[in-house]
Amino acid sequence: MQLAIGVDPGAGRSLQHQVVEQIRGLILDGRLAPGTRMPASRVLADDLGVSRNTILGAFARLVAEGLLETREPVGTFVAPHPWLEVGLSAASVPPPDSVMDRCRSLRLDRRLKARTPPHRVQAPCGDALEFDFWVGRPDAALFPLRSWRSLLSRMLQASSRQLSEYGDPQGLLSLRAAIAEHLGATRAIATDASRIVVTNGIQEGLNLVARLLVEQGVEVAVENPCYRGASQVFAQHGAELYPATVDRSGLDPASLPATAALAYVTPSHQYPLGSSLTLARRKALLEWAESCQAYIVEDDYDSDFHYDGSPLPALKSLDRNDQVIYLGTFSKSLGAGLRIGYMVLPAELCGPVRDAKALLNNCQPWLEQAALAAFLAEGDYAECLRRQRQVYTARRNHLCAGLRHLLPSWQVEGSGGGMHVVVYLPEDGPDAETVEALARENGIGVYSIDSGNARLFGSETSDPLRKVLLFGYASLTEADVSAALLRLRQVVDGSARAGVTAASCCGPAASSRRPGT
Amino acid sequence: MQLAIGVDPGAGRSLQHQVVEQIRGLILDGRLAPGTRMPASRVLADDLGVSRNTILGAFARLVAEGLLETREPVGTFVAPHPWLEVGLSAASVPPPDSVMDRCRSLRLDRRLKARTPPHRVQAPCGDALEFDFWVGRPDAALFPLRSWRSLLSRMLQASSRQLSEYGDPQGLLSLRAAIAEHLGATRAIATDASRIVVTNGIQEGLNLVARLLVEQGVEVAVENPCYRGASQVFAQHGAELYPATVDRSGLDPASLPATAALAYVTPSHQYPLGSSLTLARRKALLEWAESCQAYIVEDDYDSDFHYDGSPLPALKSLDRNDQVIYLGTFSKSLGAGLRIGYMVLPAELCGPVRDAKALLNNCQPWLEQAALAAFLAEGDYAECLRRQRQVYTARRNHLCAGLRHLLPSWQVEGSGGGMHVVVYLPEDGPDAETVEALARENGIGVYSIDSGNARLFGSETSDPLRKVLLFGYASLTEADVSAALLRLRQVVDGSARAGVTAASCCGPAASSRRPGT
Repeated sequence: MQLAIGVDPGAGRSLQHQVVEQIRGLILDGRLAPGTRMPASRVLADDLGVSRNTILGAFARLVAEGLLETREPVGTFVAPHPWLEVGLSAASVPPPDSVMDRCRSLRLDRRLKARTPPHRVQAPCGDALEFDFWVGRPDAALFPLRSWRSLLSRMLQASSRQLSEYGDPQGLLSLRAAIAEHLGATRAIATDASRIVVTNGIQEGLNLVARLLVEQGVEVAVENPCYRGASQVFAQHGAELYPATVDRSGLDPASLPATAALAYVTPSHQYPLGSSLTLARRKALLEWAESCQAYIVEDDYDSDFHYDGSPLPALKSLDRNDQVIYLGTFSKSLGAGLRIGYMVLPAELCGPVRDAKALLNNCQPWLEQAALAAFLAEGDYAECLRRQRQVYTARRNHLCAGLRHLLPSWQVEGSGGGMHVVVYLPEDGPDAETVEALARENGIGVYSIDSGNARLFGSETSDPLRKVLLFGYASLTEADVSAALLRLRQVVDGSARAGVTAASCCGPAASSRRPGT
Repeated sequence: MQLAIGVDPGAGRSLQHQVVEQIRGLILDGRLAPGTRMPASRVLADDLGVSRNTILGAFARLVAEGLLETREPVGTFVAPHPWLEVGLSAASVPPPDSVMDRCRSLRLDRRLKARTPPHRVQAPCGDALEFDFWVGRPDAALFPLRSWRSLLSRMLQASSRQLSEYGDPQGLLSLRAAIAEHLGATRAIATDASRIVVTNGIQEGLNLVARLLVEQGVEVAVENPCYRGASQVFAQHGAELYPATVDRSGLDPASLPATAALAYVTPSHQYPLGSSLTLARRKALLEWAESCQAYIVEDDYDSDFHYDGSPLPALKSLDRNDQVIYLGTFSKSLGAGLRIGYMVLPAELCGPVRDAKALLNNCQPWLEQAALAAFLAEGDYAECLRRQRQVYTARRNHLCAGLRHLLPSWQVEGSGGGMHVVVYLPEDGPDAETVEALARENGIGVYSIDSGNARLFGSETSDPLRKVLLFGYASLTEADVSAALLRLRQVVDGSARAGVTAASCCGPAASSRRPGT
């Protein structure tokens, strides 16, 4: 038998790979039937103009894959795979679509539980925008690439054995110890490794909290507006959400209900409105929790970045009664692609959360935990944050000055820390959704509360928060910010002069998109 | 003011780090009070015998951390941190223990939902054993360390930007495409990237299935015995577990109830008993699912390793009605420390599972997904598996021969594939738990069904499965296996001669632990 294959010495892959792939394809396509005797290796080698060892190696691989079998001393044969008779042939003649559809909808109707709307943290338009003020995105150029590569290499060299093993569900001890030290120095939280659980981001921390503490009918207080990814998790676990009042000084603790089991808060930099909760309100919040035996979940997502004066310490640092569950992350400083966050837990929750994490997915991957532990312990993280703070301070200043200068009727708030500012549009102008749409048509991403992954409870169109736009600035250079704001002013001015709405603008504006590119 | 600090040029850390750490310590300890004026940088530099730049750098870092502040033109001061007055001082005088305990138990009683027993996948004794036949542990020495380091480096070089961004909740496209191709070639599953979701191991896949399909009272059929990590997840989501019969040919589909919404099965290598399900039973299983509109969850945890003849293809490859949810992992081949598994989903579940993964923890970390994608696509994974199969085949053969020779009354099963064999102890001898305890006292880890992370339903002490011991062999060399079996025979013989139980043996045996070390 002569096989319908050939090799190309100039192709990127080795000759042996080429032979393996083509024979595998012939077998799986059904063109080489089970029981077929393969040509002798010497013959095939001659046919293809390759060495006999290349063919022997290819046959060995295919035997290992179960596609060929050797019958000594006769030769090599296509193996009698049940799937070649039943599986693929069945798969190649599936039942008619109508039958499949009926089966699926039957199963789904019966089985699939209620779904919440999808949770998204990726920028909605991604690369389609020229200037994107997406919220919470660090500048990739500031990632400590060289250190990271050398740390990964060092960790693999020193203890690669840990790649083969399940790790501690609570997280790598060295990383937890380094996080505890970092939190002591920068957030005034007195804690140690035993109280920390490493998670796949804050999002997983929220799930672990909900899994342990929330069930059907449990009341959970959230800020209004709040981070949508949190309210969705609690709702999915059956919580009755209670939206508490947020004013320009942050959450008002007086608005919290005595019946809640849990309050989810962002004291350092309220998401999305950007205020920092006053010390008096922090104390009132802790008193509320004590009086009604509730837990507080403190989401400290971007507190590494504070620019004016000293940051207030974390709420957790004032937590006399050990009732605050603190959630932190490296997504905003190093990057969300690392997927490393952590929880600092009240003593009685450490065991239950550890167990819940084990049952959820055993533990976090080892290598980047190990690298991060060294990065923190050796002082590189503090250094990296210092550099980022310098850059982000300048960008924030530039953005705020540009907004004041170019769009003076827009009022800027929430600029004391974090990675975004909040703009209140004039009361008599278009709302945030309209400006967002206009901007997007012109290649600029700015975000209303809803688009910025936050939830505003209540549907009154007169709500002043319908006039709020979010500007993330950490990943944009000053030149980009200038160009974006100039264009934004043109867009807004043009729309005001023409007296048009976003909807009627979209057509013509689209043609002027991305001038100069 | 002269600070009580000093530097050591010979210490591992830079002089600036040493100054930062010591001043930070003084402030956080309360020994440098808020408002304290720091010595002039020139003076402190002279005191310590370091350059002024070292001191200026240290001050700048501490200012960035919010611990110092600069009041131009006066000087540098310890910042007036609210936490130094309220936080740490409060933390240093916590309420009496009795009050704390009362608060905690009140909160816990009210809030904490029912807990399941902890889920463990780490070896119970870890490093305390000289020879550990722990199940499912690959040989760390076979990890492709050099390739992995170079792949990580290459990926970081080529697209480190992805470290800064949230990724696709479904998983990196290149990895999903490579997995689809691998499954086509090795498991006869006809699928593509759109049907695959990358997860933090099979364990997370089980959670995603349960979150979507299981709620209070839903009936889930599991094998008896079965992998405990699966039964716990389903139970935690409210499932009524139905233990289906497993005999020496694997799961008996005739024992499945028509009322179940889901059946969880391990057809390739039943966990823990090691049988491979026959083609006839596979077909019956699929017919059962079709007739009662149920889903089947196929856990194919260690099917990369099959030693005798061709492996049966995955159940999923025979799935005409698209009702099998296939779960796979790289934990057994590359290592559990990677935390990369995947699901192959029926069409109608792709969207819901993707959304559930996004809400759970956004996505898997980027870097090792990218490295693994290239490792698969470039054929290195197939090569790595081939090498492992060679080694593990030899180890399995050696273990089985050793058991036959040294412990001929022990009957070995389940050796056709995977990474462990199953030993049935003689009916008239001690049960598995007793032999396990005896072995452990002598530095050897072998595992009863219960210790091996599997669940046996029913509590009859006469159940023949109480005589089953599991031997994982992938990570032990042939020399280790020989030594361990010889010692095991001595232990068993000694115990038989003395007619003693494990309990009465523990004392004296402990002194003979680890001879020769």
